[in-house]
Amino acid sequence: MKKAISIDIGGTNTKIALVNEEGQILNKSVFSTWKGNSKNAFFDHLFSGINELVSPESFHQIIGIGIDAPSCVPSEGIIKGASNLPLKGEVPIVDILAIKYKKAVFLCNDANAAALGEGKFGNAHGLKNYAVITLGTGLGAGIIVNGNVMTGYSGLSGELGHIIAVKNGRQCGCGRKGCLETYISATGVKRNFLAQLAEGQVKSTLEDLPISEITTEKIGKAAKNGDIPSLKAFEIGGRILGEHLANYVHLFEPEAIILAGGLADVGEILFTPTINALFENLLPNYIDTIQVLPSALGANEAALLGASTLVFNKKETCHQP
Amino acid sequence: MKKAISIDIGGTNTKIALVNEEGQILNKSVFSTWKGNSKNAFFDHLFSGINELVSPESFHQIIGIGIDAPSCVPSEGIIKGASNLPLKGEVPIVDILAIKYKKAVFLCNDANAAALGEGKFGNAHGLKNYAVITLGTGLGAGIIVNGNVMTGYSGLSGELGHIIAVKNGRQCGCGRKGCLETYISATGVKRNFLAQLAEGQVKSTLEDLPISEITTEKIGKAAKNGDIPSLKAFEIGGRILGEHLANYVHLFEPEAIILAGGLADVGEILFTPTINALFENLLPNYIDTIQVLPSALGANEAALLGASTLVFNKKETCHQP
Repeated sequence: MKKAISIDIGGTNTKIALVNEEGQILNKSVFSTWKGNSKNAFFDHLFSGINELVSPESFHQIIGIGIDAPSCVPSEGIIKGASNLPLKGEVPIVDILAIKYKKAVFLCNDANAAALGEGKFGNAHGLKNYAVITLGTGLGAGIIVNGNVMTGYSGLSGELGHIIAVKNGRQCGCGRKGCLETYISATGVKRNFLAQLAEGQVKSTLEDLPISEITTEKIGKAAKNGDIPSLKAFEIGGRILGEHLANYVHLFEPEAIILAGGLADVGEILFTPTINALFENLLPNYIDTIQVLPSALGANEAALLGASTLVFNKKETCHQP
Repeated sequence: MKKAISIDIGGTNTKIALVNEEGQILNKSVFSTWKGNSKNAFFDHLFSGINELVSPESFHQIIGIGIDAPSCVPSEGIIKGASNLPLKGEVPIVDILAIKYKKAVFLCNDANAAALGEGKFGNAHGLKNYAVITLGTGLGAGIIVNGNVMTGYSGLSGELGHIIAVKNGRQCGCGRKGCLETYISATGVKRNFLAQLAEGQVKSTLEDLPISEITTEKIGKAAKNGDIPSLKAFEIGGRILGEHLANYVHLFEPEAIILAGGLADVGEILFTPTINALFENLLPNYIDTIQVLPSALGANEAALLGASTLVFNKKETCHQP
């Protein structure tokens, strides 16, 4: 039976999986992306991880290797300018793996991989126009147009997190102001929470914590227990997300929007204001078509499974053989 | 030699052309879309226009008919809910023409046709990711993704004019507030001009005209003669357009944006603020890729030629045989 090796390179962990055509993960391993804190150490851990998953005698069943990573240029097969990886400069990861393993190697950015995974095995199954919004430290989007990943000219499309949501708004790490991800992402929701304490007069149960220890998980938990500033932090973030998803719907007319990533796990505290703001801002034409769904796979599995579809589908877009 | 009949149905005029594969318009006629003010009168004028362009003995050279119109559903071959056409309700225009002429008939919305025309014969020639922004009474966008027209789920994508540009901003004809086209379109620029007179203290040379007679052509002419409120009307519109085109670039990573339509004919008075605001709001990654260009064909010719490409290309998207 045909199998693929999937590699999901993240800012914290790198996951490796052996996947079959049905999307079953047969075996899996994880290592800390920063372990050893160098490019050489990263590849040492990657190679030994692969070797542990696939024995030499079963290596002939592997038809290819699919990789997803942030900050990559799929058309050139390289990881480039990745500030949150120990892979500085330009790293020709496709060539490195293709030469080492003599297999076809495919590369895709992480949000696009998540979109492919949800399309093949998750909540977007059978849909041709949809987006997976990844709500993590930042905000990304994998966008499928007419059944294919939208990559743009060189693989830099889908930067929904850097849409200007508030003119002259919050300072973003990208150097500009008011980017959507400064309001809705793990860091954005924490900023919403602090802004609530700055502006409001309502106390929070989190006020005894050092600010550095306040996370969106804690804000989410407090919100579920009725903490007003925490609830507002998600409500403000959700509403601003919904308003901008309405703009996205007017441009793309998709069938579904999937909210994935750690932040989406909080559930209806985020989904309700997002969906309300989305529908309040839609022209009637779009209302019957669009649905907002959670991820069926979880953000990490979605990307890992999506990377395997690169191998099985050998799609023109989103890869570098 | 293979020829196509192109039909560009507009809110004012309907144009019919006989086009060859090189994009040459061999013969052309125009009638007022509202002449007779009924669906039957419209089709009578359309049929007689076609019959005048193509003699019975040369009809065998026609390989198909391409139509573009506002408010159409290409996947169903119908014009639907067209408030600015004498074609109320659902009009199965593809079937009507296919039955009458026994030819393949293709349908596409007007902005998408303009984008196809610019791609085949105009300033987007050879590009795979670009948009044609049509600046007329409203603001439309034909968006090409990876070489194909983006239609969305049912042909309703590309509504750039209804992106919310200013929260709780100007009332839009669509029922919502702050849509981009209330600031940048023929009506939008006139509203910018009136807002300048409301807010500013600078006199305009157009103040002796009845408000109903003030058009964007007159505002454009006054602007070229140094009229401050007129210049500001274009500057404000151009800047807000540029800011939102920056968002579009972050989502799509296109190679070019073509500004077409009557309003774009004013030239640098509009292009300069648009381009400045676009580049001020772009992340550095995109700056080398993107260019902003005028239409090479003019909005009307672009759509008419684009409709002919539907016939010659027989593309899956954007048609109904």
